[in-house]
Amino acid sequence: MRFHTRKWVKPEDLNANGTLFGGKLLAWIDEEAALYSIVQLENPKVVTKFMSEINFMSAAKQGDIVEIGLDVVHFGKSSLVLRCEVRNMMTREKIITIENITMVNLGEDGKPKPHGKTQIEFIEDRLKK
Amino acid sequence: MRFHTRKWVKPEDLNANGTLFGGKLLAWIDEEAALYSIVQLENPKVVTKFMSEINFMSAAKQGDIVEIGLDVVHFGKSSLVLRCEVRNMMTREKIITIENITMVNLGEDGKPKPHGKTQIEFIEDRLKK
Amino acid sequence: MRFHTRKWVKPEDLNANGTLFGGKLLAWIDEEAALYSIVQLENPKVVTKFMSEINFMSAAKQGDIVEIGLDVVHFGKSSLVLRCEVRNMMTREKIITIENITMVNLGEDGKPKPHGKTQIEFIEDRLKK
Amino acid sequence: MRFHTRKWVKPEDLNANGTLFGGKLLAWIDEEAALYSIVQLENPKVVTKFMSEINFMSAAKQGDIVEIGLDVVHFGKSSLVLRCEVRNMMTREKIITIENITMVNLGEDGKPKPHGKTQIEFIEDRLKK
Amino acid sequence: MRFHTRKWVKPEDLNANGTLFGGKLLAWIDEEAALYSIVQLENPKVVTKFMSEINFMSAAKQGDIVEIGLDVVHFGKSSLVLRCEVRNMMTREKIITIENITMVNLGEDGKPKPHGKTQIEFIEDRLKK
Amino acid sequence: MRFHTRKWVKPEDLNANGTLFGGKLLAWIDEEAALYSIVQLENPKVVTKFMSEINFMSAAKQGDIVEIGLDVVHFGKSSLVLRCEVRNMMTREKIITIENITMVNLGEDGKPKPHGKTQIEFIEDRLKK
Repeated sequence: MRFHTRKWVKPEDLNANGTLFGGKLLAWIDEEAALYSIVQLENPKVVTKFMSEINFMSAAKQGDIVEIGLDVVHFGKSSLVLRCEVRNMMTREKIITIENITMVNLGEDGKPKPHGKTQIEFIEDRLKK
Repeated sequence: MRFHTRKWVKPEDLNANGTLFGGKLLAWIDEEAALYSIVQLENPKVVTKFMSEINFMSAAKQGDIVEIGLDVVHFGKSSLVLRCEVRNMMTREKIITIENITMVNLGEDGKPKPHGKTQIEFIEDRLKK
Repeated sequence: MRFHTRKWVKPEDLNANGTLFGGKLLAWIDEEAALYSIVQLENPKVVTKFMSEINFMSAAKQGDIVEIGLDVVHFGKSSLVLRCEVRNMMTREKIITIENITMVNLGEDGKPKPHGKTQIEFIEDRLKK
Repeated sequence: MRFHTRKWVKPEDLNANGTLFGGKLLAWIDEEAALYSIVQLENPKVVTKFMSEINFMSAAKQGDIVEIGLDVVHFGKSSLVLRCEVRNMMTREKIITIENITMVNLGEDGKPKPHGKTQIEFIEDRLKK
Repeated sequence: MRFHTRKWVKPEDLNANGTLFGGKLLAWIDEEAALYSIVQLENPKVVTKFMSEINFMSAAKQGDIVEIGLDVVHFGKSSLVLRCEVRNMMTREKIITIENITMVNLGEDGKPKPHGKTQIEFIEDRLKK
Repeated sequence: MRFHTRKWVKPEDLNANGTLFGGKLLAWIDEEAALYSIVQLENPKVVTKFMSEINFMSAAKQGDIVEIGLDVVHFGKSSLVLRCEVRNMMTREKIITIENITMVNLGEDGKPKPHGKTQIEFIEDRLKK
């Protein structure tokens, strides 16, 4: 799993009990999944279609640093299936794992559109082409 | 299902494609589940433990009004299982349904604690006691 | 009075003294009045024109749950007059009462436009038509 | 009237109709009144107690610059009464006028406490003492 | 130096160590520089092109009031060079000084465009013309 | 240079001209520098002390994805000097380069404290110890 984006848990990210607000974490994951897919599919119009069940394994508190990792599980015809893991860099505990986040590639008309991709590409490789 | 909280989709709630950002919607749902549980269990220390799979059925756009509904599915010993439905008041379409959101009642020590509740209570009824 | 939207007072909603920031509360009320009017008048272009005096009766603190209620006081030709009450679900105290919030129904040209409504309608009833 | 704080209307400040969200403006005014009072009364524990009626005279749009002015109307024993005017620096129109914003000076115990001030002081003058 | 905009340090402005988040302060400065330039150059399309080195001299904490001052250092042909100073109104310490913030005046085509200004103008003076 | 955190430019990140607000970008960079340093120095109390000059080379617009890269330039006794580069993953243009961001390691007393580090460590390596 490749971990890209890191977040610093600040007061604005806390729930009223002073731990990381779960909803904020889900928002971070959704953003990360969207931008990862946009880069992979080379199309800015990608939407979240499905998330499999979410288990909140541990909490994070103010000052913790959270790291969001994504892997591609499957390239569908017009979709991309990701697996997500979030871990706490301070405590080294897993916070959340989501086995299936399905992103859909849309065309100009807002309908699913084949993306023609079958494997992960790295920006560095694309630049060499 | 009882629908409580309504949200007006403003520019700050949009993703880069100009539709309601899914992560924002998940954050709204998580907040609603938390406060609903806090009121029912009469305990401010309630956390989200689990969400079953999430299917994004339709989109919402700027100016739409979104309504979040919750029902209690089950009272566990120290947990509360909710069902959530989000609908678009402008288009009358369902946006998301989540069959199982499990909230856990915590004690002062941060560990699960029995809440002693077995049925929904309404604020109005409590006031009459 | 019907209470719809509930808010959980989180760190991001506090003023520098650690109580609910009054300006945040006013923003919540204004949003609630706008979306309530939009639904009633079936027109997304509704603006706040006037608020009568605001008395801050009690404070709310982090973790409190605040409930915003609205009633229709009067249907004008192109306006809608609302009464608002905000209460703290934890302490059961009133936080704010505003006797008159006047919302104006606008046409495409941005000018007041008759809305033709004379009574409250419920979404459920509309769906039955 | 002395105008201090200026705000640039950005997308995050808009309502769903694309004009400055009234609630955001009220939040800006409340913050300005609080910090103005804190500086005048030399006490960080100052709260908003009352706002007289608010008339929304004109709208502002994205890119406009809004300027918030405050005058002291009256020094009470433990209160400070302000008058507020908000104007649009682009269109030179008034947006809002509030004749009476009453701020209350609190003691350590959270109760009103005499502040001993009877006239406006400027930071520059205090520094000269 | 003329100090215009004041900010009240609220929980949402803090970093995870509980002091004013430096990034938030930089955002406030950039906004202030932009709107000051827009007013001076009478053109809404002004962008930040350069900031000279930034020295964080002191911290601010929750409840402090921060005041942002700007002076014009130089009128270029299509640019405006500002000097910025931020001070803490509670502790009277300087927080940041930036000697050179270069703003560029853009035309409709997004390219630098001469602004024809050679000296500071005050809104009051413009209104008298 | 190692690029970690990615941001998706959403409406809430735009200035009033519809491009990425420079202040928002500076806030993202400051957060990234802080959390990178916290991880490297294994101390949550790290503050930004200095940023060398900042040149805004290109703009980003809504929907663009921005990637923030950091390198360690120098390990001081109680400081860490970073170099930062921000690039636009859509246009492949550089947006900003900052040659020197100096972070200071603080002790419990809030004063600079030697950190004892002389080279970059990777989380993976630490876990192996």
